[in-house]
This record gives sequence, structure tokens and C-alpha cells, in this order.
Amino acid sequence: MGVVYLIGAGPGDPGLLTRRAARVLRRADVVVHDALIDRRVLKLARSARLIDVGKRGFGRRTEQEEINALLIEQAAQASTVVRLKGGDPFVFGRGAEEARALTAAGVRVRIVPGITSGLGGLAAAGIPATTRGVSGAVTLVTGHGTGCDPLADVDWQALARVGGTIVIYMAVRTIDQIAERLLAAGLPRGTPAAVLENATWPDERVLEGTLGNIAELAQREEVAAPALFVIGGVVSWRTAPAPVRGARPRISSLGRLEVQPEPM
Amino acid sequence: MGVVYLIGAGPGDPGLLTRRAARVLRRADVVVHDALIDRRVLKLARSARLIDVGKRGFGRRTEQEEINALLIEQAAQASTVVRLKGGDPFVFGRGAEEARALTAAGVRVRIVPGITSGLGGLAAAGIPATTRGVSGAVTLVTGHGTGCDPLADVDWQALARVGGTIVIYMAVRTIDQIAERLLAAGLPRGTPAAVLENATWPDERVLEGTLGNIAELAQREEVAAPALFVIGGVVSWRTAPAPVRGARPRISSLGRLEVQPEPM
Repeated sequence: MGVVYLIGAGPGDPGLLTRRAARVLRRADVVVHDALIDRRVLKLARSARLIDVGKRGFGRRTEQEEINALLIEQAAQASTVVRLKGGDPFVFGRGAEEARALTAAGVRVRIVPGITSGLGGLAAAGIPATTRGVSGAVTLVTGHGTGCDPLADVDWQALARVGGTIVIYMAVRTIDQIAERLLAAGLPRGTPAAVLENATWPDERVLEGTLGNIAELAQREEVAAPALFVIGGVVSWRTAPAPVRGARPRISSLGRLEVQPEPM
Repeated sequence: MGVVYLIGAGPGDPGLLTRRAARVLRRADVVVHDALIDRRVLKLARSARLIDVGKRGFGRRTEQEEINALLIEQAAQASTVVRLKGGDPFVFGRGAEEARALTAAGVRVRIVPGITSGLGGLAAAGIPATTRGVSGAVTLVTGHGTGCDPLADVDWQALARVGGTIVIYMAVRTIDQIAERLLAAGLPRGTPAAVLENATWPDERVLEGTLGNIAELAQREEVAAPALFVIGGVVSWRTAPAPVRGARPRISSLGRLEVQPEPM
């Protein structure tokens, strides 16, 4: 029986992969990966068979149960099986479900954490998650929950009152509903807000606005998945010029912060 | 004028450093680093002068203003200056303050995100930050705030009601007060809770308990900084044997999950 490594590939930029992830990929026999993994990261797995279970656009996504079964099957045949996921496997990644299924089947599992896009994507775009005197907490939450109501997993009224930064994953379809709930909960319309499309990828776009106008801005700019939605005073601490088609880039008074992608 | 790289070193384990961080360190002229950076990471900076601004135990910590001034001074003399911080520079790291001071002084700044210990430390210990049907959100918060009341930065009453995982950084001195506030806010005494001391380091300890008994357990086990305090149903998803002196390791029914440290 082999070992299955649950590995987080980080937000997208291949330079943000961890050294351990790279090392394990180099000796992997099989890599079962999501969509949205940079080709340069997959190329590290030079002797591995690559299995894409996250097709988008053409073909349906593989069901979670099928992925679990596939991993168990591969572990019986290969010594190093990698399950490569975007971001961190344990933050909205269903990694815990995979670890549970694997250990229940007697397969050994090792975890290699990655940078979650909600924090790494923000940082790479120049937006701090917390800052003294501005935000003493950051909540990562999904805009695409488990039930019929995609926002039912969390008490948004309470979240608005916590007083920290709010970062919403998979928010594209629900930006307007989320903004509405947070406004209804008492957050001011002028609260700084931003939407990051394709965070850390070369075609990243950052839209800056306020809780009152960000949904309209995102609609006008036709923001597509994957996108992060950030709410809080920290957005005003952003210092990078926003590379946004159409929208006016909002450059803060703090000076210029370079966030150009660099070679891996 | 040189460039200052604000780099996150991750939770501690040198294998969790990003590839870009390693690359920049290798060509750094100066590295201004915190305490709690693994020696193997500092050794990557083979041609750099190392300046430790985070002494602990002996000597006071360098004040933030002095660090800012030092970075500006170094940037005037060297081409590649690294400011190396534990975790992620933008999560309770004061990185935004440093970026602000540097850009205000006309110094170019680049950000290299790292894995924040509140998520990476949890994952490496086998505890997911979120899991479908268990927790749809995770809040990172500090137990050591800015004012006279270390817990005044956040509305704990509201936080208890959000319904997600709560991860508290720098919680050693305030575990009892935090537990009290969350219980007063209505969280059940039986809510799973854990304390991670030295997360991802070889001498890591993980204490598992409940919101009702974790403060007493941490006191009995003499938990010392740095420690993370985690509250939420995700703690029950932990599958690793807890390597805790004295305390009974609590192994869930999910099987065995290997989380042994591996070579870098």
C-alpha cells in the first residue's frame, strides 16, 4: 500500500508552492489534480501519471465519491500518490473528507499545507488580511454553501458585527446577496470592499469599491470565477495600482507597492 | 535604492517555505528576521548579513519604528533586502505597517505570502479549518490585541454566533478569558477545542479537550508561547495521535493520519 499526500498547491502562482510540495511531486507516481493548477507545477511531477479530476467547461467535474475511490485504488498500486488541490486542502477543499475516506480504507495519508487563496491572493495583491487598529480578525467563508441557500452555513448578521476583515471564496454568483445581507446587518455602505478575479494568476483583476457599489461594479466588469470578495478597512491599505480594464484604478495615498508576478 | 521583500516563512517547518521565498533568500544581501525562524531557512541566505530583530528571552524585542528605520536604511545600501517574518507577513504580522513605512519613504516593496500558522499549523496537525456540514467558515483572531484589554479588538459575542471555526493566535495568556467569553456568548461547554503549542516544530504538542475544560488542561500542561487555540467541531475531525505528555491522546474513530515531520 502506498501513501497519499494531500497537497495544497497555493493560490495559483507556481512560486507560491511549498518546497515540500515540489519535493513530493518530483517523486510522485500518480498525481490526481484539480483544475486551476499551473502547468509548471504539474511539470514538476516528471515521472507521474497525471489524472485531472477537475475538468471545467468540457466534461463534468468528477464526483467526490469517485475521487475517493480513485485515490484508494491508486494507493493500492503506487507507492507515492499525490492529491493536488488548489490553495490549502483543509480550507474549503474537501481535503478532510478525502482524508477520512482514505484512513477509513486503511490508506496512509500525509498532509502538506498550502497557502490558501483568500490570504495569499490578498497579500500578493497588496491587501493585508489584518492590520493593527484597522482589523484584528479575518474570517474566511464560502459564498457557495452546502444547502439550497448558498449562504445558510454562516450567520452573516453576526459576522458583520465581529469587526474584522471578511474574505468570501467562490463569491461570483452571490456578491449582491452577500453585500445585501451585510448592509442589512448594519455595515456601512462606505465600507471598503474589493473583488479579486484570478488572484495571483497573470490575468488577475482587482476591483476596488465599497460595500454599497461593489456588486454593481463586479457585474459591470463581468467578473468570472474564481473570484474572492473582500470586505473591510484593510482594502484601503492596498497600495498597488489596480490593473482593471474599464474600472478606474484606485491607488491609495500610501505610495506604490510592486506586486508584479516574478519568475517561479 | 534596493528592493525590500516582505516574506512569510510559514509556520516553522522549513519544508513549508515557498519556492519563491527560498529563491529570494538565496540572493539576498541582508535578511532582517524575526525570532522563531528555523536555522535551515536562514542558511538559505548564504551571502546575506542576518539581522535578528526578534530576540526573545534575552534582550528586548526591537521596536517596530526601529525595524522600519532599519529596513529603509538597508534598502539604501543593498539591492536585495529581505524582511523575513514567521507565518504570513499580512496576518497579525505588522507587515502592512512596514509596507506603508517603506513605500512612504520611497522604497520599493514586494510581497511573498507565506502559510499562516493558524491554518498551516492546524492542517499539519490533522485538523481541518473547514469541513462541509461541520464548519463553513474560519475566523483567525489574536488573543493579544492592541489596547489595554487584549480582547477588545473583536466582538466575541458575535464571533461565537457566526457558526464557524475560531483560531486564536498568541492565546497563551488569555485562553481562560477567551473560553469564558465564548461560553458566556452561548457556545456549549462540550464544543471541541484544542491548543497547539509550537505548531509544525519538532517539539509540537497538541492538547485536545472542550471549551469547558481546555483552559484547565492548558494550565496543567504548562503550555507556553507560541500557541494556537482552536475552537469548533473540526477538532473532532483530527485523526492524528496527540503527542502529549501527561494528557491522554484523543484519537478519533476516523483512523490514523500520519503527520510526522519529514525532511525539508
